[in-house]
Amino acid sequence: MVRYDLALIGFGGVNRALAELISQRGDRLAEELGFTLRVVAITDLRAGSLVDTDGIDLAPLLAAEPGELDFSGLTGGNADPRSEWVIREVPADIVVEATFTNPTDGEPALSHVRWALEAGKHVCTTNKGPVALAGRALRVLAEQRGIGFEFEGAVLSGTPVLRTAQRLLAGLEITGVQGIMNGTSNYILGRLEEGIELPAAIAEAQELGYAEADPTADIEGHDVQLKVLILANEILGADLRRADVCCEGISSVTPQEVQDAVTKGLHWKLVGSATLRADGTVDARVALLALPAHHPLAGISGPLNAVTFHTDLLGSVTVSGPGAGRMETAYALLSDIIAIHQGRHADDDTAPLYPVLQETHRG
Amino acid sequence: MVRYDLALIGFGGVNRALAELISQRGDRLAEELGFTLRVVAITDLRAGSLVDTDGIDLAPLLAAEPGELDFSGLTGGNADPRSEWVIREVPADIVVEATFTNPTDGEPALSHVRWALEAGKHVCTTNKGPVALAGRALRVLAEQRGIGFEFEGAVLSGTPVLRTAQRLLAGLEITGVQGIMNGTSNYILGRLEEGIELPAAIAEAQELGYAEADPTADIEGHDVQLKVLILANEILGADLRRADVCCEGISSVTPQEVQDAVTKGLHWKLVGSATLRADGTVDARVALLALPAHHPLAGISGPLNAVTFHTDLLGSVTVSGPGAGRMETAYALLSDIIAIHQGRHADDDTAPLYPVLQETHRG
Repeated sequence: MVRYDLALIGFGGVNRALAELISQRGDRLAEELGFTLRVVAITDLRAGSLVDTDGIDLAPLLAAEPGELDFSGLTGGNADPRSEWVIREVPADIVVEATFTNPTDGEPALSHVRWALEAGKHVCTTNKGPVALAGRALRVLAEQRGIGFEFEGAVLSGTPVLRTAQRLLAGLEITGVQGIMNGTSNYILGRLEEGIELPAAIAEAQELGYAEADPTADIEGHDVQLKVLILANEILGADLRRADVCCEGISSVTPQEVQDAVTKGLHWKLVGSATLRADGTVDARVALLALPAHHPLAGISGPLNAVTFHTDLLGSVTVSGPGAGRMETAYALLSDIIAIHQGRHADDDTAPLYPVLQETHRG
Repeated sequence: MVRYDLALIGFGGVNRALAELISQRGDRLAEELGFTLRVVAITDLRAGSLVDTDGIDLAPLLAAEPGELDFSGLTGGNADPRSEWVIREVPADIVVEATFTNPTDGEPALSHVRWALEAGKHVCTTNKGPVALAGRALRVLAEQRGIGFEFEGAVLSGTPVLRTAQRLLAGLEITGVQGIMNGTSNYILGRLEEGIELPAAIAEAQELGYAEADPTADIEGHDVQLKVLILANEILGADLRRADVCCEGISSVTPQEVQDAVTKGLHWKLVGSATLRADGTVDARVALLALPAHHPLAGISGPLNAVTFHTDLLGSVTVSGPGAGRMETAYALLSDIIAIHQGRHADDDTAPLYPVLQETHRG
């Protein structure tokens, strides 16, 4: 059975959850999926780096409290994350990038992804930054090397959005994509509907673990802006930059406005959308919209996220599911690894694998 | 470029729509998908049969009124559908089955599918009957021959339900599936909420083209029952028969009951579900449920359909979209043909297509 050696870049919640999956159900996954996974390197800003090309024993790392991990005392360990060296030099098949992203330049994730692709290693990442800001260049790099670059987790964690468009809607023209892609702002809007004031609703979202300590990216729409950029560029084939995506947030909304809308059968939602214009260009924006109750996104409440694809032949198809979460995002990485294993992308012109039945009848 | 020769079994709305697609946008699809399609045979209960192994000219057939088609006067035509002979003997790569199904024994669609698989031809079908009543046997037959048997359109027309489960949720345990899978009954329940009496609501649904002339299968839940059977057997790995799926319909519901529920924040829905029990068996049923407003299926109204997958790692993921429609169902067939072209099924243990990067690091 084929085995993939992984380098985990970042060992926060998401990559720890992936390590748990590998450690706890690796055998079952191998049976189902036809491959095994082994971690040969981990780098982390706080814990340092750990390399063992014979496979790192994950159990003791997972038993430790996240904040207490220190690789420097371990064999193959170092207090320095040495990310560039690990990504470029340690023999691994797949680099699993789950650090953080600066929304302005996509760093440090962008460099991590680029180094890995330059080194001829498959990459999967949950980071919006590299995909939103440099997706096209990275895709070209991966195609040139004949390797996989997968990032399902960049939009709606493990809920299959990008892969639904690329794989299951082939042959359709997707004319627009519209979604509720930030659970924090969606939760807060729901609470405003119930009469809670904005600061209290934000505090609640933080207590529930939806919102970051600094909720600006959620509240001001910047998180959704990056996701819209990804949908526009990856699904509609645009080549937009962040500044091309008009963006508004929910910080100026009052409970009164939101409740007034409800009396008219409308629900305020922060909607990210990318729409093909008649001239082939793409309009992309993040906007507060008052949706009628029958709109497919109107019923998406709380931390639930959803994306609707508008198509020519099939009308509108919506996928909804979790938009965040530690294990949900780790599953996105697993689904990326499965895609790398299958080695197949929707735009491949792959030869059929079935035996050719009637050669004489083919052109 | 590879070309697939198709035999269209049944030339009602769905296969006509597929023929339109091939005729009108075959070139564009070929460019995107990497294969061309050619129709070499058509059989139809009313029009008879038409065979041309050099490719049938579809344009004149599509220009004729559906009810007026008569193949008997054409070269290669015959007043007799000769379906068994066409399916077994005419050289075609893919048999596209879109006739009708008797819900008791799945005929004549079941025989059509079996003949095709026995003849070593790939099959795609939009018919619930063969899949619901004999799916496992047909799948075994297809696997033995190394050919494709695809039936995305059997559940929710072209909305990707079966393929979402099989391809995009790999590695997860799906513990249950729950859906609104009949647009007619869903539309009628919505109208009951608005105070319309059942007979009037049925008449409306018929006028709008949602309900058949005989709406029994929609109203009594039998249509959903077959879909639940498919979900239970194909997604949860059960081996149930129709009698194992408890079934209730909406014929005994009154507007008063439905409206009373609304005042309590509940919406009556006809829900088909299949759930894995602790002992590994599967509970499958069609039931009228009063769903709270925040339930992912509560907002699915009118002809919209939806299926929710409950999973171990990713929570619940819902796919919603059209559940019927001529072109929507024809797209299901196109998506099946794409799947046959890719020659890949979710449970294949396929070898990776990427070059092996580091052979020495693999077990």
